[in-house]
Amino acid sequence: MSLITVGTMAFDAIQTPFGKVDRIVGGSATYVAYAASNFINDVKQISIIGNDFPAEEIQSLEKRGVNLDGVERVADKKSFFWSGKYHMDMNTRDTLVTDLNVLADFNPIVPESYQGSEFLMLGNLMPKLQLSVINQLKVKPKLIVMDTMNFWMDIALDDLKEVLKKVDVLLVNDSEARQLSGEFSLVKASRKIMEMGPQFLIIKKGEHGALLFHKNHVFHAPALPLEEVFDPTGAGDTFAGGFIGHIAKTNDISFDNMKTAIIVGSALASFCVEKFGPERMKEITKEDIDARISEFVQLVSFDIDLV
Amino acid sequence: MSLITVGTMAFDAIQTPFGKVDRIVGGSATYVAYAASNFINDVKQISIIGNDFPAEEIQSLEKRGVNLDGVERVADKKSFFWSGKYHMDMNTRDTLVTDLNVLADFNPIVPESYQGSEFLMLGNLMPKLQLSVINQLKVKPKLIVMDTMNFWMDIALDDLKEVLKKVDVLLVNDSEARQLSGEFSLVKASRKIMEMGPQFLIIKKGEHGALLFHKNHVFHAPALPLEEVFDPTGAGDTFAGGFIGHIAKTNDISFDNMKTAIIVGSALASFCVEKFGPERMKEITKEDIDARISEFVQLVSFDIDLV
Repeated sequence: MSLITVGTMAFDAIQTPFGKVDRIVGGSATYVAYAASNFINDVKQISIIGNDFPAEEIQSLEKRGVNLDGVERVADKKSFFWSGKYHMDMNTRDTLVTDLNVLADFNPIVPESYQGSEFLMLGNLMPKLQLSVINQLKVKPKLIVMDTMNFWMDIALDDLKEVLKKVDVLLVNDSEARQLSGEFSLVKASRKIMEMGPQFLIIKKGEHGALLFHKNHVFHAPALPLEEVFDPTGAGDTFAGGFIGHIAKTNDISFDNMKTAIIVGSALASFCVEKFGPERMKEITKEDIDARISEFVQLVSFDIDLV
Repeated sequence: MSLITVGTMAFDAIQTPFGKVDRIVGGSATYVAYAASNFINDVKQISIIGNDFPAEEIQSLEKRGVNLDGVERVADKKSFFWSGKYHMDMNTRDTLVTDLNVLADFNPIVPESYQGSEFLMLGNLMPKLQLSVINQLKVKPKLIVMDTMNFWMDIALDDLKEVLKKVDVLLVNDSEARQLSGEFSLVKASRKIMEMGPQFLIIKKGEHGALLFHKNHVFHAPALPLEEVFDPTGAGDTFAGGFIGHIAKTNDISFDNMKTAIIVGSALASFCVEKFGPERMKEITKEDIDARISEFVQLVSFDIDLV
């Protein structure tokens, strides 16, 4: 199966209570690609980079089978840059700097060779660009997954709602679900959001795990209690990449398989936070991932007899 | 098996974003008794009440098999009164009024008929009084479970640490675990707290579920995503009562059975929050509880093949 991913490829400067980096590779599409390429070797990336994006990073992605034909390279501009500072709880952060750079003129083009892909992962990006990619596809993918964030709800809500009508799965965190729906109860929020378009809603809750809603069904996935959360940057994108990677590999879009995909995504995200940037994602092997997934199985297993 | 419970029996005034009550029966021991008496009919209560505590409430507890011989009745004083206001997230609250009343002179006496009980639930109460009850027991119970709160960490930390040395299971919420250990990571916090005495630590995370730690093992229980959380007052005590009630009924203090007990406690707590005070706890039947437990099983079930 093949997967198109759309999103940013960027530099980040990150401060956490445990350290800081001034310049490390980041971006939603970068993290999605590192995660998804553990499961399929036909990740077709759509993004934009400037003249400063490291050649080694390009090579590292290509070696993992990530197709970068859809990544526009702008010779006279810099890559998108984001800088943020995390609070102690690691679930909230302040954005310090956002330099759009190449992203200001990004107009994603779906290469002809990408047409016919079964899966589409819309990483966090301006909703208008997410919609543009959907509209360029000649055949509707089997599953469209959309990630987004509060920032777009603040400044581009109408566009975001247009995209929502065309996607199957939406990924947001708990405060974003509340903002988007105007409901505090996540159960009520999920119902309102699913009325906006997506049949499936995943609500990410950071260290508290994730919820999957579909019709009247709900599934709760835990997050692994970690000794250290070093840097949460990219954890959500990595979760998304693991999720869609598993779905694409198994070619199964049932609710049951999505539950499994969430565990896989959670396992991948639990590695991501162990080091700054995508560094940890480059090190892990299939054995590491399987061992981590087994920890998740252990974490939630219990027996109960209703007598 | 028989269970001694110690804690407050009180009146509460509660404001939540969804309503308010000026005077409703509450108290840690009240909630524990309502929850635990679903599982065993030998709950031996130790508490203190004033001349204002309603006769109907006494009868309602006695009808459930709760033994109130250990409840001191003070003729010329009022019952303990607490008033609080919940924030929108329902996980945080401000205490508005605390009138100790009878609680100021409480000196719990373990009735002779309570001696030899296999299980002891120390509901939230001054640590000194919790310790006094432990010290009065002629035979060490099979399992001692202690609930406490940040208030005692602020004003009676040394006493609290003395109790900790003598208990098997500690129940706290996530911010209390952080306060008690001085560690932000809950994994590190659990290790430090278990060094203080308890072999088992349960960290309650409200709408995010609960974690059980024991040696190097960890178990994560979800909370049921609820349409409405009407009033969280007593949810922690109800959780504790369901937990110890299941343990006492099954007479099994293994890690595996504690996992089950946490699911049972979570199910009970999910009812408690549906109405103000312990009202909902009086209505529910065994069938209701079993159905709710089944929802928990559904909520976390997933299949995974590591191929």
